[in-house]
Amino acid sequence: MAEKLTSRSTDYSKWYNELVVMADLAQHSDVKGCMIIKPYGYAIWEKMKDALDKMFKDTGHQNAYFPLFIPKSYLSKEAAHVEGFAKECAVVTHYRLKVEDGQVVVDPEAKLEEELIVRPTSETIIWNTYRGWIQSYRDLPILINQWANVVRWEMRTRLFLRTAEFLWQEGHTAHSTAQEAIEETERMLDVYAHFAEKWMAMPVIKGRKSESERFAGAVDTLCIEALMQDGKALQAGTSHFLGQNFAKAFDVKFASKEGVQDYVWATSWGVSTRLMGALIMTHSDDKGLRLPPMLAPIHVVIVPIYKGLEQLAEIEERMQPMIQELRAMGLTVKFDGDDSKRSGWKFAEYELKGVPVRLAIGPKDMENGTIESVRRDTGEKKIIPLDGASAYIKTLLDEIQDNLYQEALKHRTEHITKVDSYEEFKKLLDEKGGFFLAHWDGTGETEEKVKTETKATIRCIPLDGVDEEGVCMVTGKPSQRRVLFARAY
Amino acid sequence: MAEKLTSRSTDYSKWYNELVVMADLAQHSDVKGCMIIKPYGYAIWEKMKDALDKMFKDTGHQNAYFPLFIPKSYLSKEAAHVEGFAKECAVVTHYRLKVEDGQVVVDPEAKLEEELIVRPTSETIIWNTYRGWIQSYRDLPILINQWANVVRWEMRTRLFLRTAEFLWQEGHTAHSTAQEAIEETERMLDVYAHFAEKWMAMPVIKGRKSESERFAGAVDTLCIEALMQDGKALQAGTSHFLGQNFAKAFDVKFASKEGVQDYVWATSWGVSTRLMGALIMTHSDDKGLRLPPMLAPIHVVIVPIYKGLEQLAEIEERMQPMIQELRAMGLTVKFDGDDSKRSGWKFAEYELKGVPVRLAIGPKDMENGTIESVRRDTGEKKIIPLDGASAYIKTLLDEIQDNLYQEALKHRTEHITKVDSYEEFKKLLDEKGGFFLAHWDGTGETEEKVKTETKATIRCIPLDGVDEEGVCMVTGKPSQRRVLFARAY
Repeated sequence: MAEKLTSRSTDYSKWYNELVVMADLAQHSDVKGCMIIKPYGYAIWEKMKDALDKMFKDTGHQNAYFPLFIPKSYLSKEAAHVEGFAKECAVVTHYRLKVEDGQVVVDPEAKLEEELIVRPTSETIIWNTYRGWIQSYRDLPILINQWANVVRWEMRTRLFLRTAEFLWQEGHTAHSTAQEAIEETERMLDVYAHFAEKWMAMPVIKGRKSESERFAGAVDTLCIEALMQDGKALQAGTSHFLGQNFAKAFDVKFASKEGVQDYVWATSWGVSTRLMGALIMTHSDDKGLRLPPMLAPIHVVIVPIYKGLEQLAEIEERMQPMIQELRAMGLTVKFDGDDSKRSGWKFAEYELKGVPVRLAIGPKDMENGTIESVRRDTGEKKIIPLDGASAYIKTLLDEIQDNLYQEALKHRTEHITKVDSYEEFKKLLDEKGGFFLAHWDGTGETEEKVKTETKATIRCIPLDGVDEEGVCMVTGKPSQRRVLFARAY
Repeated sequence: MAEKLTSRSTDYSKWYNELVVMADLAQHSDVKGCMIIKPYGYAIWEKMKDALDKMFKDTGHQNAYFPLFIPKSYLSKEAAHVEGFAKECAVVTHYRLKVEDGQVVVDPEAKLEEELIVRPTSETIIWNTYRGWIQSYRDLPILINQWANVVRWEMRTRLFLRTAEFLWQEGHTAHSTAQEAIEETERMLDVYAHFAEKWMAMPVIKGRKSESERFAGAVDTLCIEALMQDGKALQAGTSHFLGQNFAKAFDVKFASKEGVQDYVWATSWGVSTRLMGALIMTHSDDKGLRLPPMLAPIHVVIVPIYKGLEQLAEIEERMQPMIQELRAMGLTVKFDGDDSKRSGWKFAEYELKGVPVRLAIGPKDMENGTIESVRRDTGEKKIIPLDGASAYIKTLLDEIQDNLYQEALKHRTEHITKVDSYEEFKKLLDEKGGFFLAHWDGTGETEEKVKTETKATIRCIPLDGVDEEGVCMVTGKPSQRRVLFARAY
């Protein structure tokens, strides 16, 4: 780590951009808006994928794979959907290049009859397929998930948070009743919330989107919203009840037990590599990443303090039983015996990379049968006996996981503010940031006015909100419930 | 299973196409050349992925992710590479649609300055990236793998075997010496061969491609070749030594320990969803799939034979301890209590799906404390005591895995023919098919002549071939070694 990371207080946005690159998570590619996810970043994403995939399978879902390309005409079949996605898509128009005068050029002879869109999301191609799979109620439910890359053209991009190509999963389910589809929508929102809180140590608020923030083609969009350290919100996952919209657009009907023909009910739900951005901005500090142990590619790093290669070898040998014990517990342990780097450099490097526990051991520790343990989250140092160290470390990792969650929860609790006047709202939005619980008259006009004037949007109507008589902070019209406002990523 | 599968002897090609669809592995999509991998097919692919991914990690590789799009100009930087791939690629020319007179059309204002190619393989974008990652020998080796979708436009497509979009992994490694890169090329070929034989129960021949069959941009291409039941060969994986070709094209240099600047040495290697086709055509029969237990999504299916739902419940309860035991062994067990299907229908269905072991239990078995076990590979039936059944089944699955390999090996052994005259070669190619070991004069002209006249190609120069003086079967010119000819998929 040669360069120094910009501090969060100096420039939060710059801190984020630098950290993603310096911690070897990702980098921009030469292709505008497309990122390269580097091995260390991808290892975290793989852990997210594995945990989510298991949760999807435990709730009865199966994986499948649908085409990357969508015929242009499919997009138009669902009116709201095309409106939402046509503006930002990669269009394939030709299928061949040729060499002309030494230059590689597009072969005009190889023009497609109908242009293909690189999928921005797969509802259209999947519902076009489901038509062939569904005849009767016996074919339902269909509970499918897909892990895939998608493309939404973006002019202003940021690593993980907003990229033209990103990785994600998209669940697409088909049901015989609205009730069952609604339950599925809620179930998957719960899966996302559980994942965010348990694995990512990131508290989230579950809620419903207002009409203007709904997914293009959905009847209802549920979401989880997280709060970043700079007081901005980040939508971390969405689960949509699609009603019969896509079934109608693609003519997907089923015969009920009673032989009645009806359109099929649908849901879709997704989370993406955007979660990497949320993870970084929830926990990390001016020294670098702080990774929750449940998603850390390396749980424990051991840095030997030694003089000469002989001593290094002695230390490494002495560490073997503990390393084996930790590995047997399912933990990833790295012994960094790289003789070309100073230990101070290594300390800074593993702080930057967010390794939850760093152990250091020198000649004195060897004599005393001890080891120095430093936790990344609090920086707390302890000299512990080598004997029984692995059990200590295992417990410590659990504590770190919990502490990161508690810290994030404390930050969020301190940054949920109830406001009753628009003036107060605007003032605190600038001064304090965070989530604001305020009354809203339920109209798109008011929502739009707030957005235009303050850049804050309605993040969601919290599911656990209580009924409360009040008046809209902007218009003074009656309101039955507070909604959650924030500026957002 | 309402329709009956065409038999292999009637029409092998039709049998394959029907089987893929009837066994719910995959289907064609409306997008020309792009397939839909259905949950049952994807579950097999996931098992392949998991096994391979572990082997890659055990040999020191890490996963990463590079962009889907490649700037057109990158393709041209490696002369042989553009020659090989430009002819068959999807070209993105625009990044926006718009609605005009109610129609969704490509927005001519949104034309890209430089067209983007949907990756047919990622050497170019990866080596363009490696330039920024590599300064000195300390940065080497780089051992990276990517799981991704790629697109190669194909006019004539077949599910799994030849599709415009397919899923694969591509390893891309960078080394400081030619020797190290060559060792990596060989190591990954060994990984593929081990996977093919151990997991897929598919014997393969390791060899080197002739110049004309080499990967576009490679110095040397190693491959594994398998033999399908119809006597045609299938290339199941390739591992390329790329020399310094891509390093030179993208100007990737490193400083050696001695401070000397040199170009970096490279390898790349890949296997794809084509392996699904190989798996099917190696083992399956006229009743359907025969899956090797190590890749089967369901290992054991239990079909109850009963009268009335009460008896069904009794059987299901009685089966629970055995089911739990089998699951504790890591096996996937399905109890099919679907009352809407006859047991005969179920038997045929699970044969079609290739489930390795089918158990049936009826009232008489309940009395006797027995169960009927049928293995999918041989059809052999046995009545076994329920007591100790799980241990029996575990052993049986190992036997099935081994037997499938032995059967395929026997078939291949019987279909490797040494020939010394071109007449005999042409005759046996039509009458018997399979692999032919023949002398070849080493020229591209002779290779081309054989290809044009017989549609057979040199599959590889086997790595374990022995030196043997001989004369080319076509030209009579001297040859030191036999090479492997076959017609191929």
